[in-house]
Amino acid sequence: MPKVKKDKGKIRIIPLGGLHEIGKNLTVIEYENDMIVVDCGLSFPDEDMLGIDLVIPDITYLEQNQDRLRGIFLTHGHEDHIGALPYVLRTVNPPVYGTKLTLGILKHKLEEHSLPWQTDLRTVSAGTTVRAGGLNVEFIRVNHSIADACCLAIHTPLGTLLHTGDFKLDITPIEGEMMNITRLGELGKKGLLALLCESTNAERPGFAPSEKKVGNSLEYIFTKNPDKRIVISTFSSNVHRVQQIVDISARHGRKVAITGRSMLNIVGAAVELGYMKVPKDVLVDISEIRRFKPEQLTLVTTGSQGEPMSALYRMAYSDHQQVTLGRNDLVVLSSHAIPGNEKLVGRVINELARNGVEVVHDAALEVHASGHACAEELKLLMALTKPKYFMPIHGESRHMNANRELALEMGISDRHIFLSEIGKVLEIDVNGARFSGVVPAGQVLVDGYGVGDVGNIVLRDRKHLSQDGLIVVVATVAEDRGLLLSGPDIVSRGFVYVRENEPLMEEVRALVQRTMEKCLRGRQARDQMHLKNTVRDDLSKFLYAKTGRKPMVLPVIMTV
Amino acid sequence: MPKVKKDKGKIRIIPLGGLHEIGKNLTVIEYENDMIVVDCGLSFPDEDMLGIDLVIPDITYLEQNQDRLRGIFLTHGHEDHIGALPYVLRTVNPPVYGTKLTLGILKHKLEEHSLPWQTDLRTVSAGTTVRAGGLNVEFIRVNHSIADACCLAIHTPLGTLLHTGDFKLDITPIEGEMMNITRLGELGKKGLLALLCESTNAERPGFAPSEKKVGNSLEYIFTKNPDKRIVISTFSSNVHRVQQIVDISARHGRKVAITGRSMLNIVGAAVELGYMKVPKDVLVDISEIRRFKPEQLTLVTTGSQGEPMSALYRMAYSDHQQVTLGRNDLVVLSSHAIPGNEKLVGRVINELARNGVEVVHDAALEVHASGHACAEELKLLMALTKPKYFMPIHGESRHMNANRELALEMGISDRHIFLSEIGKVLEIDVNGARFSGVVPAGQVLVDGYGVGDVGNIVLRDRKHLSQDGLIVVVATVAEDRGLLLSGPDIVSRGFVYVRENEPLMEEVRALVQRTMEKCLRGRQARDQMHLKNTVRDDLSKFLYAKTGRKPMVLPVIMTV
Repeated sequence: MPKVKKDKGKIRIIPLGGLHEIGKNLTVIEYENDMIVVDCGLSFPDEDMLGIDLVIPDITYLEQNQDRLRGIFLTHGHEDHIGALPYVLRTVNPPVYGTKLTLGILKHKLEEHSLPWQTDLRTVSAGTTVRAGGLNVEFIRVNHSIADACCLAIHTPLGTLLHTGDFKLDITPIEGEMMNITRLGELGKKGLLALLCESTNAERPGFAPSEKKVGNSLEYIFTKNPDKRIVISTFSSNVHRVQQIVDISARHGRKVAITGRSMLNIVGAAVELGYMKVPKDVLVDISEIRRFKPEQLTLVTTGSQGEPMSALYRMAYSDHQQVTLGRNDLVVLSSHAIPGNEKLVGRVINELARNGVEVVHDAALEVHASGHACAEELKLLMALTKPKYFMPIHGESRHMNANRELALEMGISDRHIFLSEIGKVLEIDVNGARFSGVVPAGQVLVDGYGVGDVGNIVLRDRKHLSQDGLIVVVATVAEDRGLLLSGPDIVSRGFVYVRENEPLMEEVRALVQRTMEKCLRGRQARDQMHLKNTVRDDLSKFLYAKTGRKPMVLPVIMTV
Repeated sequence: MPKVKKDKGKIRIIPLGGLHEIGKNLTVIEYENDMIVVDCGLSFPDEDMLGIDLVIPDITYLEQNQDRLRGIFLTHGHEDHIGALPYVLRTVNPPVYGTKLTLGILKHKLEEHSLPWQTDLRTVSAGTTVRAGGLNVEFIRVNHSIADACCLAIHTPLGTLLHTGDFKLDITPIEGEMMNITRLGELGKKGLLALLCESTNAERPGFAPSEKKVGNSLEYIFTKNPDKRIVISTFSSNVHRVQQIVDISARHGRKVAITGRSMLNIVGAAVELGYMKVPKDVLVDISEIRRFKPEQLTLVTTGSQGEPMSALYRMAYSDHQQVTLGRNDLVVLSSHAIPGNEKLVGRVINELARNGVEVVHDAALEVHASGHACAEELKLLMALTKPKYFMPIHGESRHMNANRELALEMGISDRHIFLSEIGKVLEIDVNGARFSGVVPAGQVLVDGYGVGDVGNIVLRDRKHLSQDGLIVVVATVAEDRGLLLSGPDIVSRGFVYVRENEPLMEEVRALVQRTMEKCLRGRQARDQMHLKNTVRDDLSKFLYAKTGRKPMVLPVIMTV
């Protein structure tokens, strides 16, 4: 008979986002009757989500269990970790814990939305442990491409879980401490119960380069180009990158002007909260740059992903109020194109090239460093923390698979590695770990002010409309006599250029008229649905045979 | 007084496509009254060309000058060099010259379209010179990712031009000869008058790897995976790649099944014309694969760009009739994602990873070799041919700029380098070279059977419809009395899910009714345009305030 182990309760780990996808990171961790949430991020729409602004996790499960929710714990201030909060906090509103910069950014974001109530924001520092019912959540310093990032050790009577958030090991960080691998090693002495480990760069060998390396590349570029104005584009949240640019500019006797709304916002917050130190008289307003010679200036700008309407995009297309770029400018793209943005970034580079502007990007010189741990760093973390169970999180399927391979390499047994999915429950108790059921999970689309009112049907219609446009057929029918009183009128949009295709449109009108008259003479004369369907079918067939296209056909029949 | 040079006439070089863009390569070259065209390609639509199938060059200039057009000369059989011919040959129909495989592929393509007349296809071999009025066009062997590719030396009384087409130097080609650098060197002894040089890989340092290198990588993969079925996806036109896969499979005792329509077409043509040699009994039909064990099989498939509905895509999404992939399969993506396709390719990789299928792609092992010359090859060509004038062609602005940098490095003077644009005329005579005027040029969009009937207005409407959908407002008005007889009816598509938003749609109806009644009471009661505009404006404002969206509003007013 097997020895009966003492019942210490159950842990449940339920990712509601961030697995098999990039973004909308949200993990639920429960111990018995207490529940916490780690991060609450958004993701950006796929190209087939036409017209959608952003995507947030389905939080039905949180809404159904808010009485047990003890707090939301934020690892850092990136959109994919905090961006869903303005939406989520409308229906669940527990205390939110995070470090100073993280909450500073969040506060600014919440002010932009008008929420129905105040949220209890509780600032903590790395090293702090927060009690949340039967869970104790310890913030531990990590390095990342934003300042003040932490991973979370979640202590339970069954053992300790580690949720990495996003991290890298930067031995020479620009500001603040190196990732606290000592504390992680201490936790590893006992061994973690489970490691929930980000996977973004698991396919990349080696170590991620230090942020300082980027500084060296930039320093080199500044030294080589004393006669040019230097324009550097980077992620607005990378305050360490901006700090380096400011420092290097100051050393080279240049003024720095910042342009782009999000960049100004975050740099403002970072300076105010003490995460950036700007030497006196280095920053100038973008409206003042005319006072300086080009070679006395560095411009720091948004738009490193080629976003239309960003500051860099407008500069490239000669549409920026204060900056016109030319042969005396050097543009540095201090960033890496996020998958899906390659073509947008390429367009900006081409437009700059076309105007004779020299462009330096990451392919040639090391002007960007990823904020995510590469293979060796992930293995280092596993070696330090000695987890019993391992769950790859934060990444697409390929990244999660690669992370799994690393865990196998580090000797974690296949049976102890859990490739999960959003909504899938991993249960851990003294007897072991296993998947056990599912909870509601998915994606909620945000379009304008609408949260979740656009679903598959609306998207399918948008897709259809986008491909071949539409034809609206309108007619008025005398209800009593089954007689065509007015029309049919044909209105088309996005199908053909009507002015140059009058004969086709006249053919369409005549065809619809014939079809309608035939229908109205028939036995089903007063069946509107039959009339509409016949018009739609006849017209669609005709148009496809004639043009090879399938516009949406919308018949509207009015009766008088 | 300057010495008067003997008048030897004028050369005019007019690119109609392929500059500042990838694809639709078409270059016009004129000497006095004779004109030839080099290549006639298509390009694929940008993501903002919604619903467009493909893009071809504007050939107004050819149509206006067809009496002078002596022939179309094809460098090789890729879509971006021959794909516009089925459209172009409808209005101009000179003889078309190309090598055997190139014309074999073209013939197949022309048969798929029904053209109003026969085209005079004239097969030539590398080494052949064709007389075209005052121009003599010499086909010279190059290497590329398709067999039987040539560059063209165009001899004129003023000197020789070289149009590279697409090329690389492959010292160990799979089949056929190495690029004929000897002949190019001979031309260089006198020095070229002008080099029109492809730019695709000008940003990449070094030499492009040999196609044979890919064979070595594949051999390694086959050796390491004797127990798996191996599925290799590549460009269908890369017959050398397929040849290598067949040879390696035969050596490893595997049968090869080919799947995907374009792959079957091109391999068929290549075998028929002798460009591929398939050992007996190696090829099996995809419907027969059940007869073999997985480890006895290699599948060669289309879909290396992640194209939805391609064979590989359907396999990944478990939608392929004969092939279901699992843990016993190894998928090799023997290709490189074309910019803009990264996300599509990524999706397929993720879907495979999710199903536990191992995926090998170019980032890890060298399973693809580019067909385009890198920096050192471009410089080698310049060194060999010693051109007086240099014109970068075939590439985006960034690539053309990089090619220009290489030419500067090789000592070609800045004044002799011409960064041109489509439609821009470069004139060369004994006195020198200069830009001189423009001719009509641009892009023609093909959508279904329609060639050029979709322009900016239609695309703008498609974009608008794709973002927020549309609302159609229909009403019938008694013309004489200015009275609302029926409606307003509201029909929406792609805006909100109507069933869940009945109250909003009712609000919309009521608003439109109020607006219309007010208008119909007013002085401009019978001004339909005024009525429509008022309804559109009122409704758009209301919807934006309410939902943050801007659907297209289409008012249709019928009068009885």
